[in-house]
Amino acid sequence: MKPWIESEMVRRFTASVHFDRELYRQDIQGSIAHVRMLANQGLISPEESEAIVGELQKIREEIEEGKFEWKEEYEDVHLNVEAALIERLGEIGAKLHTGRSRNDQIALDMRLYIREASERVRKAIEEVQKAILSLAETYADVIMPGYTHLQRAQPILFSLHIMAYFWMLERDKGRFSDAARRADECPLGAGALAGSTLPLSPEHVAQELGFSRSFRNSIDAVSDRDFVIEFLAACSILMVHLSRLAEELILWSTEEFSFIEIADPFTTGSSMMPQKRNPDVAELIRAKSGRVFGHLLALLTVLKGLPLSYNRDLQEDKEGLFDSVKTILACLEILAPLLRTIKVNKGKMHSAAESSFILATDIAEHLVAKGMPFRRAHAVVREMANYCREMGKGFKDLSLEELRTFCELFDESFLKRLTAEASVKARRLLEQVQWQIAEAKKLLGQPAH
Amino acid sequence: MKPWIESEMVRRFTASVHFDRELYRQDIQGSIAHVRMLANQGLISPEESEAIVGELQKIREEIEEGKFEWKEEYEDVHLNVEAALIERLGEIGAKLHTGRSRNDQIALDMRLYIREASERVRKAIEEVQKAILSLAETYADVIMPGYTHLQRAQPILFSLHIMAYFWMLERDKGRFSDAARRADECPLGAGALAGSTLPLSPEHVAQELGFSRSFRNSIDAVSDRDFVIEFLAACSILMVHLSRLAEELILWSTEEFSFIEIADPFTTGSSMMPQKRNPDVAELIRAKSGRVFGHLLALLTVLKGLPLSYNRDLQEDKEGLFDSVKTILACLEILAPLLRTIKVNKGKMHSAAESSFILATDIAEHLVAKGMPFRRAHAVVREMANYCREMGKGFKDLSLEELRTFCELFDESFLKRLTAEASVKARRLLEQVQWQIAEAKKLLGQPAH
Amino acid sequence: MKPWIESEMVRRFTASVHFDRELYRQDIQGSIAHVRMLANQGLISPEESEAIVGELQKIREEIEEGKFEWKEEYEDVHLNVEAALIERLGEIGAKLHTGRSRNDQIALDMRLYIREASERVRKAIEEVQKAILSLAETYADVIMPGYTHLQRAQPILFSLHIMAYFWMLERDKGRFSDAARRADECPLGAGALAGSTLPLSPEHVAQELGFSRSFRNSIDAVSDRDFVIEFLAACSILMVHLSRLAEELILWSTEEFSFIEIADPFTTGSSMMPQKRNPDVAELIRAKSGRVFGHLLALLTVLKGLPLSYNRDLQEDKEGLFDSVKTILACLEILAPLLRTIKVNKGKMHSAAESSFILATDIAEHLVAKGMPFRRAHAVVREMANYCREMGKGFKDLSLEELRTFCELFDESFLKRLTAEASVKARRLLEQVQWQIAEAKKLLGQPAH
Amino acid sequence: MKPWIESEMVRRFTASVHFDRELYRQDIQGSIAHVRMLANQGLISPEESEAIVGELQKIREEIEEGKFEWKEEYEDVHLNVEAALIERLGEIGAKLHTGRSRNDQIALDMRLYIREASERVRKAIEEVQKAILSLAETYADVIMPGYTHLQRAQPILFSLHIMAYFWMLERDKGRFSDAARRADECPLGAGALAGSTLPLSPEHVAQELGFSRSFRNSIDAVSDRDFVIEFLAACSILMVHLSRLAEELILWSTEEFSFIEIADPFTTGSSMMPQKRNPDVAELIRAKSGRVFGHLLALLTVLKGLPLSYNRDLQEDKEGLFDSVKTILACLEILAPLLRTIKVNKGKMHSAAESSFILATDIAEHLVAKGMPFRRAHAVVREMANYCREMGKGFKDLSLEELRTFCELFDESFLKRLTAEASVKARRLLEQVQWQIAEAKKLLGQPAH
Repeated sequence: MKPWIESEMVRRFTASVHFDRELYRQDIQGSIAHVRMLANQGLISPEESEAIVGELQKIREEIEEGKFEWKEEYEDVHLNVEAALIERLGEIGAKLHTGRSRNDQIALDMRLYIREASERVRKAIEEVQKAILSLAETYADVIMPGYTHLQRAQPILFSLHIMAYFWMLERDKGRFSDAARRADECPLGAGALAGSTLPLSPEHVAQELGFSRSFRNSIDAVSDRDFVIEFLAACSILMVHLSRLAEELILWSTEEFSFIEIADPFTTGSSMMPQKRNPDVAELIRAKSGRVFGHLLALLTVLKGLPLSYNRDLQEDKEGLFDSVKTILACLEILAPLLRTIKVNKGKMHSAAESSFILATDIAEHLVAKGMPFRRAHAVVREMANYCREMGKGFKDLSLEELRTFCELFDESFLKRLTAEASVKARRLLEQVQWQIAEAKKLLGQPAH
Repeated sequence: MKPWIESEMVRRFTASVHFDRELYRQDIQGSIAHVRMLANQGLISPEESEAIVGELQKIREEIEEGKFEWKEEYEDVHLNVEAALIERLGEIGAKLHTGRSRNDQIALDMRLYIREASERVRKAIEEVQKAILSLAETYADVIMPGYTHLQRAQPILFSLHIMAYFWMLERDKGRFSDAARRADECPLGAGALAGSTLPLSPEHVAQELGFSRSFRNSIDAVSDRDFVIEFLAACSILMVHLSRLAEELILWSTEEFSFIEIADPFTTGSSMMPQKRNPDVAELIRAKSGRVFGHLLALLTVLKGLPLSYNRDLQEDKEGLFDSVKTILACLEILAPLLRTIKVNKGKMHSAAESSFILATDIAEHLVAKGMPFRRAHAVVREMANYCREMGKGFKDLSLEELRTFCELFDESFLKRLTAEASVKARRLLEQVQWQIAEAKKLLGQPAH
Repeated sequence: MKPWIESEMVRRFTASVHFDRELYRQDIQGSIAHVRMLANQGLISPEESEAIVGELQKIREEIEEGKFEWKEEYEDVHLNVEAALIERLGEIGAKLHTGRSRNDQIALDMRLYIREASERVRKAIEEVQKAILSLAETYADVIMPGYTHLQRAQPILFSLHIMAYFWMLERDKGRFSDAARRADECPLGAGALAGSTLPLSPEHVAQELGFSRSFRNSIDAVSDRDFVIEFLAACSILMVHLSRLAEELILWSTEEFSFIEIADPFTTGSSMMPQKRNPDVAELIRAKSGRVFGHLLALLTVLKGLPLSYNRDLQEDKEGLFDSVKTILACLEILAPLLRTIKVNKGKMHSAAESSFILATDIAEHLVAKGMPFRRAHAVVREMANYCREMGKGFKDLSLEELRTFCELFDESFLKRLTAEASVKARRLLEQVQWQIAEAKKLLGQPAH
Repeated sequence: MKPWIESEMVRRFTASVHFDRELYRQDIQGSIAHVRMLANQGLISPEESEAIVGELQKIREEIEEGKFEWKEEYEDVHLNVEAALIERLGEIGAKLHTGRSRNDQIALDMRLYIREASERVRKAIEEVQKAILSLAETYADVIMPGYTHLQRAQPILFSLHIMAYFWMLERDKGRFSDAARRADECPLGAGALAGSTLPLSPEHVAQELGFSRSFRNSIDAVSDRDFVIEFLAACSILMVHLSRLAEELILWSTEEFSFIEIADPFTTGSSMMPQKRNPDVAELIRAKSGRVFGHLLALLTVLKGLPLSYNRDLQEDKEGLFDSVKTILACLEILAPLLRTIKVNKGKMHSAAESSFILATDIAEHLVAKGMPFRRAHAVVREMANYCREMGKGFKDLSLEELRTFCELFDESFLKRLTAEASVKARRLLEQVQWQIAEAKKLLGQPAH
């Protein structure tokens, strides 16, 4: 078998078995479906089919138990499995590759992999969503400052803030579904690039493997990897979201913010400063966005300007994909318990939400509600803020008299409005969060309460 | 208005009106919907609403006629329009921004833009698809060599090859649809980050603007740009496909291949070599993949690790998006007529498909059909190829006697199989292409014939 | 002139004059040197040379005064200038392009541009370095917490922290110098790709334009753009540094840190929250790293896998370069005055540097100095920190008796060591900063004091 | 030791020993220098120093022989080595980390790594340069068509073309040197971020390890990784060059070009098409540009917006770097013998250089030499080309009479000029290549002949 790479040096340079063996399950799954189709079409006998299928299953078990000996001389996962089969079954094993090329075989393996990975990622995302939901419910009414430009802007609820990530992740799941859906087309039967003269049944294989349909164009089937790029783009956007959450966890854990404490098991110490409780997990999540973006760019580069049909360049589609899947699963899996065990410092959050000027928008809107055009109200509040800053006061410290020097529309009742609670209430934030939680539970298939 | 940027230098550095005025239609469309909602909710009077709407429409016309004076001192498109309104309507104009922040306003403009751009791109893709379809129909039965590793592999049909791009583009359209669908959520009413104390109706605005629903979380609504990244990822994958097609057009136009001639209007000459007919258009399409990938990576970088909610960093989401849309539309719009006017050199293609060893797979499959295990058949053909190379012959030049020295299964009838036509026929490629063309027409809403 | 693009659509698609006219100075400078060489070699007469040079200078003036009419039909900057010349000088003007191709011409323009841009960027970096130096001198002895993992780690000096950026920028300058040095090779005379049959003198042109040498290989001279990529890589690394500084300015400006105040002219307000003083400038600097990275990756993509020699793809090397230069100059130019006018809140910094456990390393090193192995000392301090946390104390609150329960090596004198000042002094930080300032001044050619 | 990561899950997530053990040599080298300095400064005794150094050397040997047991519980390479030391030497081993933090330690390891990698890469590049030089000498006078836009442009020499890559690689070497030079600063002594209270001597360590100098700013020393980015940028530019060469090898190996044959040991066959001799090695080199670009982008992303000083994000600087070094070394090491064994088809190249219109520039320049302005000459040749195309002739097929209908300047002697040889000679290409070869040999320290 495979005497066609003539130099050891080239063999090492082109070998992929050290990474593509990650596809052994998909490869064997595809081979079994292929063999059954061959038998069904009368290209091999039922006995041959049974023998091959049985042996393939044994090989799979051996791989899973770590007993299978991978050989670099057999270049890739396909040839390793086939060589073992031939060694064990002789002539019969040599029939496995009938009507098939490694070109359509690897395209199939990759599609099966993407389908499974997409499903695993979606489940892992849901665990993080549940952790977020749990935080939102536990701390539903905790007031914190909302930030724009990392400056305190308005009093909000912690639950509103954290639920923002729920919806980002919900869209991420949609992107993984769409990527999997677009990859849902079985390429087997496309051969090297243009089918086979043998009476194969690609539809049979497609059905056996649970694909919605067989390929429509054999050249397209073996040449393109757009479904991998799309998957990596979904991974990258997910990592953007996780990096933003990680950044906030890091900020909130600083002594300066002190909004949360990450539970001991999720912090690490220092080799030099024994007192440190560092948010290393969050830092690594933030940083790992880099490698996932990198894998996306790498594959875009590989495919740029590549003529059809199969080129060996396509071999470079795997390592980045596998590492991306491994990375996002690891990040999601550690993030879920980390979030669940965060300690929220309600006091710190609340007092930060009572900053001197944080109710500026409330005041402006109060004036608007009384009939003043928005831009005028905006100008009034700006003057008030300037005055306060000069006097070293906050809005709350102003007397009704002082207020009236800025605008006659202020009255007694207004003074009561100048609290974080009143502001949050006036914007019905708790109701909104409760509605979001209910919606979120529906999406996750959870009971309403 | 807007005395809040205090230095000319900062004003210049932060100004965006020179590029975000591209959003004027979306901005005015959003403002009109906002104003109508304000009137509906009793926050302004019907007369005020009518006055503002009327003036906004006038401003839009002026912009379209090039009569509107954009001022950099008013920083962005929003403030330019609002300032003009206030200048013309006074107090009434100052009510436009009631219950709205530039944060939710720009999020709205971007979503409207993505929706429209997605639709335009899809239409432009369809024009290229139609050109491909026309080529495939015109040259349905032209035989050419199929390539793997840019080496001739098997005889195929030109129509099969070119239709591969049809299906790539079909998936691209799907990605743009999905991106638009995920952006289909109206952010107006989210305010700066957490709504308003005023009795707004976000649902009213959403409906007026044709969105499927209003935002679910106000912080998410103003903080995220994942829908822009997703759109840019769709653009990047499209450019991968176009760059591959462009590469093939360039290769096929070389004197070495001479498979096609690009029509005169789509080639350019040289300042030094007057005889040149260069495929500059295809080269530029290939190269422009770079800038679109760059815009994608730029926005991933911008959003990486950014805390919620709105940060000025988000302003950097626009130029790359606009340039990407402009770029892909230009590429698609020139590619359609370029493809339609290509001259296909059938003779050159056909003779290239009769290379010495191009029928190796056919021979191997012939043996398999006669019962030989695939790997043995593969080895037989390899020996034949080695023999031929030594003797300076092609497969076709072998006599039946010579053939039989390799394998007894060869017989008289086999000799007739050794043509490109027979090979293409044995793999039923024409039927497959015809089926694809029919399917393609259905998708494009064209008559079957 | 130039009838070689036959279709208006193609003309628009391939035209570059709307962006490459940015190179008009370099283009005319190169043409003048070329013409003088032609005269020197006897290929044109001295009178023709003078006429052309004079007219080229006039054209340059017209361009600078905005009087020159750029025409898209003349595709690029080269043809626009040449067409104007021919229009004015007739036959004589038609001699300008003798022995030259647009391929070597544009390669020259780009190298001249890189040389100038590199110099401008270096100067702009120095202005930021001076601002940093000024901050370091003004606040030389202000104590602040040093951070690792954004957790307070050890007391340091603000001047030490800010000087870290000085050295980063110093390396950045080195990278721009190296990039310019590697581009310092004159490509004129390479022709379209392989020189000319005319008796040109490339060395003459190289010398006239101040290059160190003429090209060594004509194909390399017109085909590669590695010097542009290297320049963009230097830009990207610079933007990494600026984005990190910007991030710190944003963090330090939060109400939570309150370490600095950015001066009024460099903050912006809000359309909805009139009290806000947002660090928009720093946010945009942070974000603009994205576009510069994007331009780098775009050009890497363009050049990937491109066969020699000139291909139209190379036209895509310009817009990203110009935008990168514009971007980094704008960032540097606004950063210098922004830094100079920062107000440092010494009190806030100092008190943050007196956190409970910030002297842990000092204590461990104290024990090491007394002979305890480092890892044991580390363990002792860890126990102390755990004890303190339980008791709600800081290290400073421990009595000598308590200290001795952890380790007998503690004595009376040790208690005095437990201040931020003592820690900073023990590590001789002020001396180090003073040495750095002196070194920095030498590098900038400033007087020692 | 190191009980500071409290959860197994976090340990796994944050562990780096599975990849950073690649740094064991650098780590031990740095530790030995550190220990000697400690002894020199009297912080440990000479006997302790000797014991530690001896044991570190033993550990290094064990690692090299595969006998050292790496433990994931000890997180990284540093702690694995230190833990082994303490296990063997007890208290004495616990002194290794005196006055050192993992922050300055890893910064040191990375700089040592970059220094060595840079040297190895330069050597590997030189082997490819030598192979190019050997090709250029062997085939010095082989004529081939020079291409622009992948269209035949002018006759050139194969040696001129291939030498273009020599100079690209020469600049690449310069970039690696510059990157190493900028990393040539010893960070040890910077501690966690701000030095130590112990009387260390950073200069001593710097000298012992062969650095030009010690760090200038301790925070900069542990916080930045610009030297890694710069190295990755150099790798990326190198991969651009290799991908271009790979693309040409692939094109030239097609049946259509048939300019070269890659030697058997460097081609691979096909699982389905036994006759194929595929240029897989060149394809993979071309494709591997993607992963290197990806690693560059990844690290840019990691560092973007990261506050000082050390953050765990920096751990993500390693895998991409290691993979980049491995990748470029593998590509270079296989490319050198591949190039040396290429078979050049002189006949194919030469006849391709005799295309119908390839001498257009020569003709135009001939007219210019006779006094016609270039643009007029250009127009004349264009007319000639149009005429020939209509008549189905090449320039060579034109009679003197026909020639004179286009321009009176043509005469008898001109007809002899119309060969590829004459064109190459008129441009003195062979002399130029010979000069380049001589220059190249000087640079490589080779004898002139």
